[in-house]
Amino acid sequence: MRRGLPPALLCLLLPLSAWASTEGVVGENLLWLAIMLMAARLFSPLAERAGFPAVLGELLLGIVFGNLALVGVDYFVPVARDPIIAFIAELGVVILLLQIGLETRLQDLLTVGLRASLVGAVGIVLPFIFGAFLVGPLLLPGKADSAYLFLGATLAATSVGITGRVFRDLGRLQMPEARIVLGAAVIDDVLGLVMLAVVSSLVTSGGVSLIGAATIIARAVAFLAGALLLGRWLAPHSSAWLARLDRGAGMLFAQIVATALFLAWLAHAIGLAPLIGAFAAGLLFEPVFLRTFGPPGIVTEIEALLPADSKSTPATLRTVLDRHTDHQHEHLLEPLGYFFVPVFFVFTGMQVDLRTLADPATVAIALGVTAAAIAGKLLAGLAAGRGVNAWIVGWGMVPRGEVGLIFAMAGKGLGVMSETLFSVIVIMVILTTMITPPVLTRLLRRHPSGG
Amino acid sequence: MRRGLPPALLCLLLPLSAWASTEGVVGENLLWLAIMLMAARLFSPLAERAGFPAVLGELLLGIVFGNLALVGVDYFVPVARDPIIAFIAELGVVILLLQIGLETRLQDLLTVGLRASLVGAVGIVLPFIFGAFLVGPLLLPGKADSAYLFLGATLAATSVGITGRVFRDLGRLQMPEARIVLGAAVIDDVLGLVMLAVVSSLVTSGGVSLIGAATIIARAVAFLAGALLLGRWLAPHSSAWLARLDRGAGMLFAQIVATALFLAWLAHAIGLAPLIGAFAAGLLFEPVFLRTFGPPGIVTEIEALLPADSKSTPATLRTVLDRHTDHQHEHLLEPLGYFFVPVFFVFTGMQVDLRTLADPATVAIALGVTAAAIAGKLLAGLAAGRGVNAWIVGWGMVPRGEVGLIFAMAGKGLGVMSETLFSVIVIMVILTTMITPPVLTRLLRRHPSGG
Repeated sequence: MRRGLPPALLCLLLPLSAWASTEGVVGENLLWLAIMLMAARLFSPLAERAGFPAVLGELLLGIVFGNLALVGVDYFVPVARDPIIAFIAELGVVILLLQIGLETRLQDLLTVGLRASLVGAVGIVLPFIFGAFLVGPLLLPGKADSAYLFLGATLAATSVGITGRVFRDLGRLQMPEARIVLGAAVIDDVLGLVMLAVVSSLVTSGGVSLIGAATIIARAVAFLAGALLLGRWLAPHSSAWLARLDRGAGMLFAQIVATALFLAWLAHAIGLAPLIGAFAAGLLFEPVFLRTFGPPGIVTEIEALLPADSKSTPATLRTVLDRHTDHQHEHLLEPLGYFFVPVFFVFTGMQVDLRTLADPATVAIALGVTAAAIAGKLLAGLAAGRGVNAWIVGWGMVPRGEVGLIFAMAGKGLGVMSETLFSVIVIMVILTTMITPPVLTRLLRRHPSGG
Repeated sequence: MRRGLPPALLCLLLPLSAWASTEGVVGENLLWLAIMLMAARLFSPLAERAGFPAVLGELLLGIVFGNLALVGVDYFVPVARDPIIAFIAELGVVILLLQIGLETRLQDLLTVGLRASLVGAVGIVLPFIFGAFLVGPLLLPGKADSAYLFLGATLAATSVGITGRVFRDLGRLQMPEARIVLGAAVIDDVLGLVMLAVVSSLVTSGGVSLIGAATIIARAVAFLAGALLLGRWLAPHSSAWLARLDRGAGMLFAQIVATALFLAWLAHAIGLAPLIGAFAAGLLFEPVFLRTFGPPGIVTEIEALLPADSKSTPATLRTVLDRHTDHQHEHLLEPLGYFFVPVFFVFTGMQVDLRTLADPATVAIALGVTAAAIAGKLLAGLAAGRGVNAWIVGWGMVPRGEVGLIFAMAGKGLGVMSETLFSVIVIMVILTTMITPPVLTRLLRRHPSGG
């Protein structure tokens, strides 16, 4: 008797064999999620006590889980390739970028627009040149030109998830450096897409299609401009209209999360990353649009205790109550983040295969490539100009994360990338992703909060 | 370029064809979730204005989505059989029963233990007799005995998800009737499992295995007793230990949700429904165990504003602050419920095939079976004894929901159930599930809150 087990209902539509397999996965998935959730939460304070950000604890935990098979424990092998866990992880990065978007004011992002564009452009061009024309031919001689081009593209990638999480964990999303990095990462996503398309078409057809590249740029710009212009115009009206139907927190929550899921889907549908859509959704909602929804329960209760004459309410208490009303939507998303976000980072860690570290020659080459990868992004940080800390901006762009791996996979799919080159890239991705959180944390702690 | 798209990483391990299919599904799933979330939230206030509970709005919405193919719109056809959406729905019912468990005091449940057992037992036996020996042979003459036995087993099922949601929506989980229904539903789950095993073994082997039945009962009792005894003993210690590591809301959240996922998995692993495990997890945590975690942010901020001399704090304000500290864990789960729970009810509605209503003769038989199904559970309500409203208890047991469908599927799998009988059961399940929320809402509104 399986009360409330909707997957079992699938057997109304699917053959029994399919049912049986869904059944098994559903059961195990519950345990996997329980383990990931609790282990991540136990690991994070330990990492923090050792001076590292919580996200590093989750990544390391994922690497441990993903490589337990090396010591004979193969329990987690199916987790790393389970589509349901992969989707939960995907929702994790969508929720994280939605949270980061909500905590970022669009106005603040626009004021750093020029600097972010410069950082993004330099951060794409320099690492690409380093990879394709310098360290590639030097450290791995004798490969095809197309292999070097792909190496360059991989070095140009940026993974904003890791950096955004570090800024957020330390409460520094408001500093100009954070805004520059976030803006540059969005620009990088578009430019990186163009670069991948150009390199791929070079490899397959032997020539670059200008129309193809222009199409990608046009779509990406249309998406961002369209979502932001239309969304900012719609958000106050839709909030007012929905609040008239139901002023409760549930409606506020549904509006924001459904918008994020919709824009994530739209971004994905036109070939961008879903998390760009989620970030754009976060930029749409300003606290002032959401005031039409009721204040959180505790605020209502305390207001009921206050004297009717609002002037006699102490100003400090009024400030606290107002702030919690204005940030209600962010508090509402917090538990969703507790659930989904660790799954993303643990799952990302699980994709790392430590066996790539077994060959010393590969590791040596990888260290050289990693140095080039870091140097390229640190130089991009200088493009941020005066008045900001170039190191923080530069290091914020360093992690390649899963984006680098996906570029490498595309190259492997086209048959231009050898096993060695692939291993080199995997190690570079691991190193840039793992080094950044501790370095950035140290830089941020030394840097005064005032900006 | 797909930044932050872990499914794409699967291609490290899976053939590209598998990757491509996961890819497509991940994209569409984002849109499906956005539509389900927003549509459910828009429908609920409309249903409530018409005097129905929100859950009925979600079920109806699901039925509409699931049957749009009848008018040529086949967009939602793949949703109803998508394993990822099915898993999200499964998490929805797990979260819902966890919430209901957290809002239920174990002590309160034990005080109605005898009554709940009686209601549960009568509510299994009477509908079974009605189905197997009365309406089955009368309305559908000429079938095999085993078909009637399965019809009886289907009528004996109870689906606590629907009823629990109605009690919760109306804030009446604390009334004795609600506790009796919840207790009886847990007992029904065990007894129903035994009955399904017994009927199945009758069909396949022609005889009943006493050992088989005894094993099922022993496992179920061991699970519930073990989880509750061990859990209640562990919960205060683990809470204290975890709070020493991190007093934040994230740790509190992880402890409760991971426990629920773990017990849901354990229940599933021994053949019970996952939601029984989630409900048991909710019963483990009393507010007093969780006081070791810090109070919620707003409470801390307001406490900082209060005079150091705690006696001069107004008692009413103190009460509000304390209550929000004690119920922090429930508030933390609320957004998770906003996300997951509607998916469960919309998804359940989507499993309903309106074409079964096309044949008048089938509908007539189904109405007779439905009457027997309702009568059996209403009579069970009388077993609750004096001092409680037998109608509320009885109607609380009426919905068969997905459990009835799963029983019917088991019978179909064993080849004892004809298409007609299956359609009859599907209609009975739809009717009992759809009638209950409005009837129960009306009964509860007429009934004084005092109990």
